[in-house]
Amino acid sequence: MRRSRLFLPTLKEDPADAEVTSHKLLIRAGFIRKLATGIFSYLPLGLMALRRFENIVREEMLRAGAQEILMPAVQPSELWEESGRWNHYGKELLRFRDRHDNDYCFGPTHEEVITDLIRREVRSYRDLPMNLYQIQTKFRDEIRPRFGLMRGREFGMKDAYSFDIDEAGAAQSYRAMFEAYNRIFKRCGLRFSAVEADSGNIGGSFSHEFMVLADTGEDAIVNCPSCGYAANTEKAEFSSPEAALISSDAPAFKKVLTQDMRTVEEVTGFLGVAPKDIIKTLIYKSEQNSAVVALVRGDHELNETKLKNILDDNSLEMADPAFIRKLTGAPVGFSGPVGLKARVLADYSISGMTEAVVGANEANYHLTGVIPQRDFTTDEYYDLRMAEAGDSCPRCGGELEIKRGIEVGHVFKLGTKYSEAMNATYLDPEGQSRLIIMGCYGIGIGRTVAAAIEQNHDEKGIIWPVPLAPFQVVVLPLQVQDEKVRQAAEALYLSLQDLGVETLLDDRKERAGIKFKDADLVGIPLRLAISQRTLAKNEVEFKERAGSEVQFFKLDETPQRVREILDRLFAEMRS
Amino acid sequence: MRRSRLFLPTLKEDPADAEVTSHKLLIRAGFIRKLATGIFSYLPLGLMALRRFENIVREEMLRAGAQEILMPAVQPSELWEESGRWNHYGKELLRFRDRHDNDYCFGPTHEEVITDLIRREVRSYRDLPMNLYQIQTKFRDEIRPRFGLMRGREFGMKDAYSFDIDEAGAAQSYRAMFEAYNRIFKRCGLRFSAVEADSGNIGGSFSHEFMVLADTGEDAIVNCPSCGYAANTEKAEFSSPEAALISSDAPAFKKVLTQDMRTVEEVTGFLGVAPKDIIKTLIYKSEQNSAVVALVRGDHELNETKLKNILDDNSLEMADPAFIRKLTGAPVGFSGPVGLKARVLADYSISGMTEAVVGANEANYHLTGVIPQRDFTTDEYYDLRMAEAGDSCPRCGGELEIKRGIEVGHVFKLGTKYSEAMNATYLDPEGQSRLIIMGCYGIGIGRTVAAAIEQNHDEKGIIWPVPLAPFQVVVLPLQVQDEKVRQAAEALYLSLQDLGVETLLDDRKERAGIKFKDADLVGIPLRLAISQRTLAKNEVEFKERAGSEVQFFKLDETPQRVREILDRLFAEMRS
Repeated sequence: MRRSRLFLPTLKEDPADAEVTSHKLLIRAGFIRKLATGIFSYLPLGLMALRRFENIVREEMLRAGAQEILMPAVQPSELWEESGRWNHYGKELLRFRDRHDNDYCFGPTHEEVITDLIRREVRSYRDLPMNLYQIQTKFRDEIRPRFGLMRGREFGMKDAYSFDIDEAGAAQSYRAMFEAYNRIFKRCGLRFSAVEADSGNIGGSFSHEFMVLADTGEDAIVNCPSCGYAANTEKAEFSSPEAALISSDAPAFKKVLTQDMRTVEEVTGFLGVAPKDIIKTLIYKSEQNSAVVALVRGDHELNETKLKNILDDNSLEMADPAFIRKLTGAPVGFSGPVGLKARVLADYSISGMTEAVVGANEANYHLTGVIPQRDFTTDEYYDLRMAEAGDSCPRCGGELEIKRGIEVGHVFKLGTKYSEAMNATYLDPEGQSRLIIMGCYGIGIGRTVAAAIEQNHDEKGIIWPVPLAPFQVVVLPLQVQDEKVRQAAEALYLSLQDLGVETLLDDRKERAGIKFKDADLVGIPLRLAISQRTLAKNEVEFKERAGSEVQFFKLDETPQRVREILDRLFAEMRS
Repeated sequence: MRRSRLFLPTLKEDPADAEVTSHKLLIRAGFIRKLATGIFSYLPLGLMALRRFENIVREEMLRAGAQEILMPAVQPSELWEESGRWNHYGKELLRFRDRHDNDYCFGPTHEEVITDLIRREVRSYRDLPMNLYQIQTKFRDEIRPRFGLMRGREFGMKDAYSFDIDEAGAAQSYRAMFEAYNRIFKRCGLRFSAVEADSGNIGGSFSHEFMVLADTGEDAIVNCPSCGYAANTEKAEFSSPEAALISSDAPAFKKVLTQDMRTVEEVTGFLGVAPKDIIKTLIYKSEQNSAVVALVRGDHELNETKLKNILDDNSLEMADPAFIRKLTGAPVGFSGPVGLKARVLADYSISGMTEAVVGANEANYHLTGVIPQRDFTTDEYYDLRMAEAGDSCPRCGGELEIKRGIEVGHVFKLGTKYSEAMNATYLDPEGQSRLIIMGCYGIGIGRTVAAAIEQNHDEKGIIWPVPLAPFQVVVLPLQVQDEKVRQAAEALYLSLQDLGVETLLDDRKERAGIKFKDADLVGIPLRLAISQRTLAKNEVEFKERAGSEVQFFKLDETPQRVREILDRLFAEMRS
């Protein structure tokens, strides 16, 4: 493609509302534009990158025996009522009514639709196993969409669903998808980790997340260097109940003035205690407006996902100040469990605390010397907190490390959750009706493209892994007004295309500096520059975007050498 | 692909709710399944057919210089308010609110979004011309979705938008798209007609519809055999004002009892007059609940599109009986223009009527001898009716014919409608700010696939034009239990694939009759059957789905002969 005819509006400045690198670079390099919060248009290069990834996904799905279908975005409420998710899903489900007042949603996922399809079409065990997938647009009405394509509201997803007659078949389907996912991310040239999303079950896990590793990743991954255990901190279990050490002669707690001291930092500084001596009291509100109180140590972080899973309530939200004042009688920052009338869940680590500091449920006061179970009772102890470096490995007891990553894929064994709720059955060889065993397998399309950028960039711009790059090569004639330079670049461009190399020719009448800068920003893996100087020696300047070394190729050998370099790069990623 | 591993649920019976051939066959042949009214899932073969068409569209868009982008389905109301369509669009626009109570719609079209994109990115005349397109999922909340993919609610569309600096450029962009559309439908192997959707303007029309010709088509196309003029009857202008012949001594009208006579048929039969002597009084209601009355002759049909266009009000709907009674004082069937207090629009043909019969606005009474302009006044005379065979050609005065077709594409010069409303400008060479001139160009993806079936089928099933067929060839081993037959079929299947022929191998353990029936239903263009009998002669039975002749090919020559037949078919469609 010729740059002069390409809609590729690059920007000099980072967009004001972009917080993460991939968001900034996708906007600056002219790949996407924001339409509304969490909703983006893909410009030509953005769509090219998406399509490169989609094609890899399609090839590997085909290889794994999955068949492509396409289900609608708009889904009727009836199916969601059958599965029980219409009321359960929370506000992320974008609901609406059509002109005839029927309820629908913009599908955030397709378990209901595919289960409905399958229950109508599958009769016998002979129709199974089956694996159907689609690459389709979904919508999740995130409360705070951010990070560009990372956590958008409208997004493209590859979702696959497997259908088997028994557990052994389901395990085989799961394994096939697990392997396909490994191949997909490897073929993209990404560094990634497949982590257990549900750890410790006998016989291996049936839920894995695929994380692209990047320092800027939103997720923390727990990793055990000793045994290789890897899990999302959100999901990782690790701590266990500690024995409470209630000393019978311990003095009663005291109320102390902590004027304007709200945060752990403020309170520890003022009272001269450590964060691990504090109990954080976090108040949540359910959809029915009832309060749930979660307690974690001051040096720990509450894991909302675990809390929601324990209570089986996705609607939980942090309570607002008014709600907190009504419940505790105090403003935010002075909540504590002593005397609190609400359901209280505590992290395991709380049970081992003595002399804890808690809010007094009174403005500007805290309590010191509080002992759990003596001074307040919790309804339950659970694993409620985020894993941290140094926690014990649940497998081998080794010391856990934390890496950062971005979740780009998820494989999950659903079992009979949906087939039971929606009565999706098959007849076995004896004519008995049995439930179909399902699995589901998702990959975020735009998210993977964004994650590739989080992992591969520098201060100048994107560094595309070759398989995802919109163009593999950019040809820069540095003086287009010089007819010889122009013609040599044009000839090189055509020869490269003849060899199947996806090439961009920057034929604009711009200064060399601007062309180099744009090429770096857009991140095209291989760069060929032709100038009066290189032409004098019958040469082309070659540089890989990822490296710093500059080489000079003979003009007539260049297309073949570039082809070989690309073949080698692709081969490495496939092997 | 092997049939045994393909999700292709064919049905023996037509679905009960399918009215048209393409809908019936797409369901029966296992291409689509209904999820909700006007909302369908594409099964593997349905998606393959879609993709074949999409790829042809992409190739021709690229050739015409258009660049592919992808815009969101969910669009913010603000842009629609700017263009003035938020309130104007009517109930087909699916509106909803997100969790933060902001208004959005599921885009039925993307003029607003693309105009917003362009006004932000285009600075100078140097950035233009530009043509951007997408293949994307849209939603129109049709009041009565029907005919399967023909008039669905959720549907895939290719929509392109051109941006030019002046009229000459816009005309050139229009012509490029017009030619691309001709190539697209020709390459699909379809019989089609590009008809004027806006006739008679000097210097050529700037709106054309592309109609696939089929007897079952929803649209009627006006065609003049003399001069070649072709237009959609919905759009075709043809009649012009006729001189009113008010005779000053004509007797006054009379009120006559027409007990229970409501329809044109009933009234003409009872009064012994011709339908052309009757004025049909049709009452419409606007969104603001005001009445609009349209008058057409009893032998004509009102064209709602024209009425809506004249009033620039898409919200118009036929009034309900209660509304009619309130306005006229009479039940449905007895409305008339005499004494009616409402805005009255009349078709041109009304102006030439004398002694017309109209409803009396009183139950069971009509008026006879009514003379327009003497007995009632209309606010305006317009071309309000559908074209009919025998009407005069607006170009040459010849007699028009009517053919039936299905609108699959539309090219349209928008001019500055959106760029003016939304302030999309560029700076000309003199630094003057000017409005961008736009065009829009749509193709219904699923609709074209359905139209191909309406045009190409027989009582046995679909007859795919080769370029749209999910598979080009089906190989039928008639006795799979015979190892020689099985192996020969397998070898043939692999050889065909080596030659790039998209082949389906029906490897099921089914009777020959079932395999033949399924192959005919699914409509694969070329059929190769291998049986013990043909193998004995080292032959394969070859049959084209479209023909009736059966040929026998030597087994070893078959792949090459099939490849040649396909190459010839493709070449014919490209030329």
